[in-house]
Amino acid sequence: MDFAPSARAAELTEAVRAFIETEIDPIEAAYHREVAAADNPWQPLPVIAELQSKARAQGLWNLFLPAEHGDAYADRFGTVGGKGLTNTDYAPIAELTGRSFLAPHVFNCNAPDTGNMEVLLRYGNEDQQREWLEPLLEAKIRSAFCMTEPGAASSDATNMQATAAVDGDEVVINGRKWWSTGVGHPDCKILIFMGLSDPEADRHSQHSMVLVPRDAPGVNVERMLTTMGIEDPPHGHGEVSFTDVRVPLSNVIAGPGRAFEIAQGRLGPGRVHHCMRLIGLAEAALELACQRSLDRTAFGKPLANLGGNRERIADARIAINQARLLVLHAAWLLDTQGPLGAYSAVSEIKVAVPNMAQQVIDMAIQLHGGGGLSEDFPLAAAWTNARALRLADGPDEVHRGVVARLELMKYGAKR
Amino acid sequence: MDFAPSARAAELTEAVRAFIETEIDPIEAAYHREVAAADNPWQPLPVIAELQSKARAQGLWNLFLPAEHGDAYADRFGTVGGKGLTNTDYAPIAELTGRSFLAPHVFNCNAPDTGNMEVLLRYGNEDQQREWLEPLLEAKIRSAFCMTEPGAASSDATNMQATAAVDGDEVVINGRKWWSTGVGHPDCKILIFMGLSDPEADRHSQHSMVLVPRDAPGVNVERMLTTMGIEDPPHGHGEVSFTDVRVPLSNVIAGPGRAFEIAQGRLGPGRVHHCMRLIGLAEAALELACQRSLDRTAFGKPLANLGGNRERIADARIAINQARLLVLHAAWLLDTQGPLGAYSAVSEIKVAVPNMAQQVIDMAIQLHGGGGLSEDFPLAAAWTNARALRLADGPDEVHRGVVARLELMKYGAKR
Amino acid sequence: MDFAPSARAAELTEAVRAFIETEIDPIEAAYHREVAAADNPWQPLPVIAELQSKARAQGLWNLFLPAEHGDAYADRFGTVGGKGLTNTDYAPIAELTGRSFLAPHVFNCNAPDTGNMEVLLRYGNEDQQREWLEPLLEAKIRSAFCMTEPGAASSDATNMQATAAVDGDEVVINGRKWWSTGVGHPDCKILIFMGLSDPEADRHSQHSMVLVPRDAPGVNVERMLTTMGIEDPPHGHGEVSFTDVRVPLSNVIAGPGRAFEIAQGRLGPGRVHHCMRLIGLAEAALELACQRSLDRTAFGKPLANLGGNRERIADARIAINQARLLVLHAAWLLDTQGPLGAYSAVSEIKVAVPNMAQQVIDMAIQLHGGGGLSEDFPLAAAWTNARALRLADGPDEVHRGVVARLELMKYGAKR
Amino acid sequence: MDFAPSARAAELTEAVRAFIETEIDPIEAAYHREVAAADNPWQPLPVIAELQSKARAQGLWNLFLPAEHGDAYADRFGTVGGKGLTNTDYAPIAELTGRSFLAPHVFNCNAPDTGNMEVLLRYGNEDQQREWLEPLLEAKIRSAFCMTEPGAASSDATNMQATAAVDGDEVVINGRKWWSTGVGHPDCKILIFMGLSDPEADRHSQHSMVLVPRDAPGVNVERMLTTMGIEDPPHGHGEVSFTDVRVPLSNVIAGPGRAFEIAQGRLGPGRVHHCMRLIGLAEAALELACQRSLDRTAFGKPLANLGGNRERIADARIAINQARLLVLHAAWLLDTQGPLGAYSAVSEIKVAVPNMAQQVIDMAIQLHGGGGLSEDFPLAAAWTNARALRLADGPDEVHRGVVARLELMKYGAKR
Repeated sequence: MDFAPSARAAELTEAVRAFIETEIDPIEAAYHREVAAADNPWQPLPVIAELQSKARAQGLWNLFLPAEHGDAYADRFGTVGGKGLTNTDYAPIAELTGRSFLAPHVFNCNAPDTGNMEVLLRYGNEDQQREWLEPLLEAKIRSAFCMTEPGAASSDATNMQATAAVDGDEVVINGRKWWSTGVGHPDCKILIFMGLSDPEADRHSQHSMVLVPRDAPGVNVERMLTTMGIEDPPHGHGEVSFTDVRVPLSNVIAGPGRAFEIAQGRLGPGRVHHCMRLIGLAEAALELACQRSLDRTAFGKPLANLGGNRERIADARIAINQARLLVLHAAWLLDTQGPLGAYSAVSEIKVAVPNMAQQVIDMAIQLHGGGGLSEDFPLAAAWTNARALRLADGPDEVHRGVVARLELMKYGAKR
Repeated sequence: MDFAPSARAAELTEAVRAFIETEIDPIEAAYHREVAAADNPWQPLPVIAELQSKARAQGLWNLFLPAEHGDAYADRFGTVGGKGLTNTDYAPIAELTGRSFLAPHVFNCNAPDTGNMEVLLRYGNEDQQREWLEPLLEAKIRSAFCMTEPGAASSDATNMQATAAVDGDEVVINGRKWWSTGVGHPDCKILIFMGLSDPEADRHSQHSMVLVPRDAPGVNVERMLTTMGIEDPPHGHGEVSFTDVRVPLSNVIAGPGRAFEIAQGRLGPGRVHHCMRLIGLAEAALELACQRSLDRTAFGKPLANLGGNRERIADARIAINQARLLVLHAAWLLDTQGPLGAYSAVSEIKVAVPNMAQQVIDMAIQLHGGGGLSEDFPLAAAWTNARALRLADGPDEVHRGVVARLELMKYGAKR
Repeated sequence: MDFAPSARAAELTEAVRAFIETEIDPIEAAYHREVAAADNPWQPLPVIAELQSKARAQGLWNLFLPAEHGDAYADRFGTVGGKGLTNTDYAPIAELTGRSFLAPHVFNCNAPDTGNMEVLLRYGNEDQQREWLEPLLEAKIRSAFCMTEPGAASSDATNMQATAAVDGDEVVINGRKWWSTGVGHPDCKILIFMGLSDPEADRHSQHSMVLVPRDAPGVNVERMLTTMGIEDPPHGHGEVSFTDVRVPLSNVIAGPGRAFEIAQGRLGPGRVHHCMRLIGLAEAALELACQRSLDRTAFGKPLANLGGNRERIADARIAINQARLLVLHAAWLLDTQGPLGAYSAVSEIKVAVPNMAQQVIDMAIQLHGGGGLSEDFPLAAAWTNARALRLADGPDEVHRGVVARLELMKYGAKR
Repeated sequence: MDFAPSARAAELTEAVRAFIETEIDPIEAAYHREVAAADNPWQPLPVIAELQSKARAQGLWNLFLPAEHGDAYADRFGTVGGKGLTNTDYAPIAELTGRSFLAPHVFNCNAPDTGNMEVLLRYGNEDQQREWLEPLLEAKIRSAFCMTEPGAASSDATNMQATAAVDGDEVVINGRKWWSTGVGHPDCKILIFMGLSDPEADRHSQHSMVLVPRDAPGVNVERMLTTMGIEDPPHGHGEVSFTDVRVPLSNVIAGPGRAFEIAQGRLGPGRVHHCMRLIGLAEAALELACQRSLDRTAFGKPLANLGGNRERIADARIAINQARLLVLHAAWLLDTQGPLGAYSAVSEIKVAVPNMAQQVIDMAIQLHGGGGLSEDFPLAAAWTNARALRLADGPDEVHRGVVARLELMKYGAKR
């Protein structure tokens, strides 16, 4: 057992850290203020594209590309050394980028584009890859993922009501999706839509994933949702209606009926990424909490020396360390045993990490007083991120259900 | 021991419930949508004034007025029967109004105006009462309370840096305040400002409360703050700078150096009101949670019948009931033993209720899935309210400190 | 609403407090040491009988007797004024007695005898009352309650496997019971046994409660159980086998098939008593914690001034106060609305109070260091009491289920 | 990063697992029953010595011996391959032995003997090693560790009042110790005593560790303590008085004044062992909980399918996995960076693991109903173990203080 990172991971992590410290940290606060004051907060400022060029030139680009599928693309579009990284090696990088709201975009490693790129990488055909994957790998376009629906409990994906009906050599799409993250971005050109194709098929073969151009007739972004009052530009979360949208049958990814299979493949590494970014956010919150607790004084003492504050700081340190190790272990299981071997582990992190982050950030907010709830600190947005991830990609309850089922099956439970 | 409400309390509570059900509930959701879409969300829609007239005509007006000070005003400006209510009698009414964001305004029972009116009622002189209290009691003007500062830990009020220096027959005000709730309202005409007058005086006699007209030269609302991304119109929370603002010495409430004494008097009943409103909010959240858990289906069952959802509903019911009784008891202590006899009790509710409400509402959000975080349900705003009250009027930690100190003093601790 | 106790409750509470302080507290620690060192710890020391005489002489006897059924007996066997108390009036007395392990016995108010006496009072016929109730009211004999079984989940009482088969004018009893509290007492003469009489009857009419003399042939106490290593003399918790035990049909309480009805009637006030006694125990633990935190010094400060200790003391104070109010309110509902009107409330306290007590006592243990786990303080036994009550009389989970069901039925749920 | 165990660790872990399954598990329950019924529960049954011989013959002996100091002894007294194990390699073995109460003794890997052997290994001189270490390595004798005192808060070791005064070529020992684990064992021959030698020396050089023969005149075991009612034979926890006990100066380990230095060295690996054993206990409890939840039926369903039981099982799985990774990582830090590099990590596990285990075992108890509290399942003893470890070797609060101090020092805090 060896907890030291591989040489390549150590080197890349260090390069990413240095890039963030010198290029991103110094501009981040001003960036958000400028965007907040802009007429159109949805338009990213030009500095993003500049930083993207710089990052790409240094090979700090598309680092999320998985070793087993991404090597060709890593060579052409990015990663230092022309090879994709294992989940274990990428995880600490994801943590670092998660400390910042800009960094994932700068390194072209932001959700939902990473997940969508992985889908195309693993399941897309050559045409689909040329048309959509390659511009995504260059950050020339952005994408959205349309799965959750306002009218059905999305914890049970088989509840889905939107349809993707095969009609000759076309697919006809109808329905309403929400929490379509990324649809607010001005460069968003492609949506991956999931809908019901064949209600007669077996339970997990009824649905298809379809590539739907953002500007296809019948696609309408009805509104952008807020999360705890936050709109989260430039990506945002849209409610999107699809009315008799027609796309060629060839836009179906991997063929009709394979949506669940694709979703499973997409979600494992995606959950590791999400969780590692959240751990970065929790670390950043703890850092702010520590600094605040030393800088602010009340009743003649720094906050750190009042009441239970040190205990809370200790608990946060312990909670973050435990959660990080759990995610790294899940990443290692994905690398060494594949999705099935990591099935419980991935659900475990999906429960543990957002709950941990929600608590750690809440503690940091409390130490910041009213300011912690305001836009003066990144804590309100961080908390909202953590809270949302207790629902996104499956609520806690569903993941606990998976963990318990696998646990009880060891003792003979059927399910 | 008798947990039944008095006849008058029962009657008024029923009248308020009926008013809310018939007049406010049917328009509330549309009201918020309309305001959110308005060019100027800070301008209350005319329906508020209409409902205020109707409520006043029915004597459901200024119900917060305390028995011991408010009887004269209750007669002229409001309450059915021309008598103020005890804290115990008012508490269930505050709970009902707290279920709605509009109701407190409709009944002229909203913070911070209630607290400011109480200050004027208890400590204001006749001129101050005529000029500011009376229009407040008629809801002709609105007010703000300026105490917390961005540059100092407000948990320790003696940290305060803003000044209210007596200069002959004037007071000169300088400093910066934030979380000045109510300052965003277009009818806000008067600020109650708290600042340092005499650094040489004894620790709790250094500060004064001063009435500062909103339009006095040198008063500038620098910005409106967000709480978890929410601006909370029409009242809002402002950051306000005071630069060489001069007001007559007669604007000092109860004379220089008495700010702490006034703040203590203001805060007891105010905390009971806040807490009862939060209990109303928690009840409303539990109601939504129950309905949702019966209406939504996943995996072939209503959510109520999945996993731990019923246990969470039970825990919420228990938590709300406990918290309500604690507040009612604190109100009764205030009524029967005064602020000193209710000292621990008031701090206890200030800890217990917001924490309870935060958890209950978080549970309700979880049952609502992504929608729970959006503006489609009142849950995100409710959560933010509860969370903010863990800081406003003193953070949890300070109130726990009070409770522990009083507890330990029973066993001989000096403090 | 009035939180002040009635004059009679205040007077009796004060008398009980004085009796405990002057008569019981001074001997309690020595009593337990002496019993622990005795050859036969199951034999109560003579001082108990002496104190019982003294208490009875002062009318501090059988105070648990409910107003509605107990007045006759109150007159003959005890209570000051010859009238039973309401649940609301008795509750604070139960709290006081719960602080001590001896007090409930001294006042003849200890479980399971109180519950058994209530059963006989409400459902027993004249013969049964003369033979068993009267000596119990005089503390001449003791009793046990035999319901839970080792082989079946007792959370679902319909699981019960022991039988009470009617055979002519006899009842034949077979089966094995455990956690038969009280069976270890040398004066235990009567068992109330619950078993299956008619598997064909409707689900809640299949079982009977039968009076079984402790010395009936076929009754065998197989062993005394430990709870967390504690045997809990003189009452103890036995595992009892019943092998073809025959008793007259007239020993069936209220007739065959009525066990569930009786159990429900027995449990409401019994749960209030249990919970109030636990609140007394939690108060005693908090008192010890406060004293310890002031008396012990580490790192140059009393423990009270280290880390989060004050916050924990405050949280304990708040938790106890909330729990007490919840129980008092449940008692008041029982008094004013009967068992049905208090149905949810009684389950709520059964969840809230033992969990609260478990945490408060655990906190007190922690402040006592290793000593807190030893027999030098009453904390280990107190914790065990609280923990056991999360299972006894129905586990938390069952009571949460009741609370949730009643809550959801408000919104149309069938159950 | 590689979470796979080394080949040697994998092999030894497998051998230990097989030994426990075939030799220990089949006899464990009967062993405890037989001891409980014995006249003298302090006398281990002969099967222990037989199993020890068998284990030693297979090289499954003294596996705790650390690589850096233990190789010579590993060769002569035990471990397969004649080489000590790293902490990382030993940790999973400690976990396995922790599932059973007998296993640590069978493999000569039980506390406090392991810690005492490590002290002698690292700090003992040749004579001390020959006289005490060697027979301990052969399990010919047993030992105790006498540090905590009844009269002082042991969280702050500098509070210690017992004395070890140098008097010429002797040391004179006076004072009272408790929680002297191991002193009840009939083979206990040697005590490691810690006491004050020089009150004038610098704060951490005032104390000495002294080897005191169990039968030295003036040593008296006053009583054996219970922990939650449990006596924990054959080792037990004694209260020991030392009255003018004289031992040669050469019995001082490493010379006077070095007790704190030795304690620090002793505690790092010891805490890893304790924590890994507790993880084994928590795993065993979860296993019992799963089996019970499938075997028992209530309301027509296995407990596993009722209410929140699956969620609790999932949470337990997640909590155990996180805690195990945290301990393994701490072990790896000890191996690769030494005690200083692992300083925070060792305190983190000392907080995280016992708290986790306490909760997991409490959950398992609840699923077992009353039986869970009795001696019919190992859960009551397991809970007591976990609870005690929140105090033993420093209470939670002290370890949280260490973690917070190290965290805040990153941001410039002095301490």
